Amino acid sequence: MVFQKEVTLPAFRRGYHLITRFISEQLPELPETGLLNILVKHTSAGITINENADPTVRSDFERFMNKMIPEGDPVYEHTDEGDDDMPAHLKSSVIGASINIPITRHRLNLGTWQGIYFCEFRNYGGPRKLVLTVLG
Amino acid sequence: MVFQKEVTLPAFRRGYHLITRFISEQLPELPETGLLNILVKHTSAGITINENADPTVRSDFERFMNKMIPEGDPVYEHTDEGDDDMPAHLKSSVIGASINIPITRHRLNLGTWQGIYFCEFRNYGGPRKLVLTVLG
Amino acid sequence: MVFQKEVTLPAFRRGYHLITRFISEQLPELPETGLLNILVKHTSAGITINENADPTVRSDFERFMNKMIPEGDPVYEHTDEGDDDMPAHLKSSVIGASINIPITRHRLNLGTWQGIYFCEFRNYGGPRKLVLTVLG
Repeated sequence: MVFQKEVTLPAFRRGYHLITRFISEQLPELPETGLLNILVKHTSAGITINENADPTVRSDFERFMNKMIPEGDPVYEHTDEGDDDMPAHLKSSVIGASINIPITRHRLNLGTWQGIYFCEFRNYGGPRKLVLTVLG
Repeated sequence: MVFQKEVTLPAFRRGYHLITRFISEQLPELPETGLLNILVKHTSAGITINENADPTVRSDFERFMNKMIPEGDPVYEHTDEGDDDMPAHLKSSVIGASINIPITRHRLNLGTWQGIYFCEFRNYGGPRKLVLTVLG
Repeated sequence: MVFQKEVTLPAFRRGYHLITRFISEQLPELPETGLLNILVKHTSAGITINENADPTVRSDFERFMNKMIPEGDPVYEHTDEGDDDMPAHLKSSVIGASINIPITRHRLNLGTWQGIYFCEFRNYGGPRKLVLTVLG
């Protein structure tokens, strides 16, 4: 069984956003056992699994990643699209543009404290497209 | 064919640990061709594929990652669970909480020097749960 | 349906290289819907999805990643294989050694600006092996 759907996220502000519920609501009845793949179809955004409870984890992600991969680094030559653009590309490959989640007993099988983060690395990224693929 | 199993790793000390053999021993007879997904069900641990021979690669990982993503950074607000907690969340998303490995002729198809690292980012993480999913 | 093929990339110079067309040419007719996994069978190279248009994005990747994960860091003990070796292992786990791409209407379903980067982290990595696995 293969199920696939392309969905559009509303424009999020720059930062890390919990979208676990949004994703679950887009899915049909899941197979007994399988795997969900989510791809972000953009090169300046990302997706990852992390802590779903304390919002300061997400704001710490934003602040720390801005320090680890800063704007205005003198090595950047790709600067025409704004100071936030090249760091966004780097973060997209360091955090990743896709995740896989196992499906168990017809549900996404994440740990108690795990949620899905959509990572908007641009100042004004606009709506973003995801592809959801279920194999089972 | 879909096979799935949840397994528990014993408590590992903080650092990078080769678990290739442990994983292989948990698996049933694998399909002729397919894919294995492994998810770590925690937000302060990770899993990756890297060099399986020289143990100093793994201790260099521990030391370098502690420098790249340090404890006590002044940007952190999420500090209630200890100095090792927020860096552990960051490392989990930078290294990743899941991997995929192709299955070929009924075996995991890794390169000669590739092994599976379980990455314990907390000082005292305790036993950790993994989900193994085989599609084939 | 499962299809699998092992392919060899020619020796690339150190850096980030677009291989989207190379990968597409290796694949048979793809299923209507599915998922492609690509694994790099090496611990000092990587694979990621990023911007496919401006070559300065790829040279900025090379320069910035060399700064974030430098050669000659005093924490490294694994130095016998050359100054470029331990940073290559670290980059391989930070960028990742495998990617997944959804298949839609018999084609790889990437965003308009997304391409597949092969990341050669060694000075002289030589030919590199990839495993392509299609599930659908």
